Amino acid sequence: MKKTLYIFTSGELKRKDNSLYFESEAGRKYIPVEDTNDIYIFGEVDVTKRFLEFAAAKEICIHYFNHYGYYTGTFYPREHYNAGHVILKQAEHYIDKEKRLELARIFIAGSIAQMRQVLKYYQTRAKNGKEEITALIEKFKERTSELSEGHTVEELMAVEGHAREDYYKMFDYIINDPDFRFEKRSKRPPLNRLNAMISFGNSLCYTMVLSEIYKTYLDPRIGYLHATNFRRFSLNLDVAEIFKPIMVDRLIFMLINKKMIGKKDFDKQMNGILLTESGRKKFVAELDKRMQTTVNHRHLGKSVSYRRLIRLELYKIQKHILGEKTYEPYRSMW
Amino acid sequence: MKKTLYIFTSGELKRKDNSLYFESEAGRKYIPVEDTNDIYIFGEVDVTKRFLEFAAAKEICIHYFNHYGYYTGTFYPREHYNAGHVILKQAEHYIDKEKRLELARIFIAGSIAQMRQVLKYYQTRAKNGKEEITALIEKFKERTSELSEGHTVEELMAVEGHAREDYYKMFDYIINDPDFRFEKRSKRPPLNRLNAMISFGNSLCYTMVLSEIYKTYLDPRIGYLHATNFRRFSLNLDVAEIFKPIMVDRLIFMLINKKMIGKKDFDKQMNGILLTESGRKKFVAELDKRMQTTVNHRHLGKSVSYRRLIRLELYKIQKHILGEKTYEPYRSMW
Repeated sequence: MKKTLYIFTSGELKRKDNSLYFESEAGRKYIPVEDTNDIYIFGEVDVTKRFLEFAAAKEICIHYFNHYGYYTGTFYPREHYNAGHVILKQAEHYIDKEKRLELARIFIAGSIAQMRQVLKYYQTRAKNGKEEITALIEKFKERTSELSEGHTVEELMAVEGHAREDYYKMFDYIINDPDFRFEKRSKRPPLNRLNAMISFGNSLCYTMVLSEIYKTYLDPRIGYLHATNFRRFSLNLDVAEIFKPIMVDRLIFMLINKKMIGKKDFDKQMNGILLTESGRKKFVAELDKRMQTTVNHRHLGKSVSYRRLIRLELYKIQKHILGEKTYEPYRSMW
Repeated sequence: MKKTLYIFTSGELKRKDNSLYFESEAGRKYIPVEDTNDIYIFGEVDVTKRFLEFAAAKEICIHYFNHYGYYTGTFYPREHYNAGHVILKQAEHYIDKEKRLELARIFIAGSIAQMRQVLKYYQTRAKNGKEEITALIEKFKERTSELSEGHTVEELMAVEGHAREDYYKMFDYIINDPDFRFEKRSKRPPLNRLNAMISFGNSLCYTMVLSEIYKTYLDPRIGYLHATNFRRFSLNLDVAEIFKPIMVDRLIFMLINKKMIGKKDFDKQMNGILLTESGRKKFVAELDKRMQTTVNHRHLGKSVSYRRLIRLELYKIQKHILGEKTYEPYRSMW
């Protein structure tokens, strides 16, 4: 499994013949091109065109985050797969209202099921609110049936929005730490520590899915839930819905409950609260560990890493689109 | 309408406060950020992260092309105009049989008209076969009316195939050189010198159109004539039909008739005949000259280069697909 490279220091990404390296005050560090899946840039890193060319040839995506840890953009190399038929089918599933609705319904059902799974894990472990969590687990069953009644993507998105709102309310029970109150979901900027972690984690999740999409025949521009406006990639946002609860939310609970991240890892910035560089480093290190963790895969009957799980999910979506097999989203077992 | 910036020289893209500039040997050139939609980089251009951040904030995409002019990748800001709607429309015109047929008909009519135009140019100039050429010019009128009777893309392709066969037969009259007989169209490998030149020229034409497609919102994977096989880009093949007669065939006639390329520029290779390296160099140099040549543009009322002509053609196709204006293929005047 190829690795992800995270760069927090400042320097320059360069190329010499057929090798890539990062040059900083600490010296020259070579990048194992054949073993690198993607690069996350957090530091002040300049890049030469020759670097980008070789990275593109090696199919490496480069994701940029600004000084505050906000995602700014991605260098997406030219498609290496040239599957006109997949893109046609992908477009057809967007243009055809029924087909789009079916996919939107599956994504949202998958997302709610994953949130429910997180709640089930904490149902007995949470210090408070066991009753509330249990009640919400029950309620989520109904939410799923509401989905079959939704006749537009907007109606479905509303169901998802309500479910997520209820779900976030449980965070205070699960975390139970006065330093990390949920209050309400706030973005750009997040207004408290917990929201800062959610925003940062979600943006990492979106780019990880984007990196994996690049490795398939799918086109990130055509999504089904999030495609109402064409101002950003959208398929990665759809697929991230399935993975945010297990990849991001559970990681946040772990980081806080094990006191791995605390008050000192946050800063007041731009009228909001953001993770400091050291906070981001800890977050990324633990997320990376988690991405490499293997979980038992029900159908494959073997262990696969989380990163691999994302790729498998994309293959399932591809099969759905090609009419080979109806997409069933991944559901974690614990 | 925001503008596109093309950078051919080498240098560095930098930021100072809220302005972006390009620094090269020639000095510092400021980029009007509010007025720039995207930047195309052809030179050896390095970029600072602070530049990318501000470009991202202004939703400016940055497209990279390598030393040979091939597209390598794009920096997509978090929010950008990703033209998902163009690809959807492009797919719709493929999926909808009538829409696809209409476009296929236009491409083939355009291709036949261009072949006819080449014949007209040589009608008086050819040493032999004036009668045959004149007869074929007449026959091509009928071919165009046959197009309205074609009810499948395959039928239309057959009309085009017959027209092209007749057209190639005229090559011997136009060239009239025993070293360069057409015989019959042979590919992979070409079996004689003329076919070697046609194959080489056509492949250059396909990649030139592909390069230009990357400068538009169109997706090269979805074509209308050539999309039956999914192993290659196809929109460029469609558009090349319009340009092959003037860009490739007329160049070949010129190279042979002016004795710029001769027997010694060919080699027996892989059971066929191919241009030698020096032959290819001469061909490319002359093609490149031709691409930079400006021709009078009927509608624009000004001179544009052939390369620009291709781009304009793509914009017309984009307009057709977006339902703004029915596509009318370029027709050379001489």
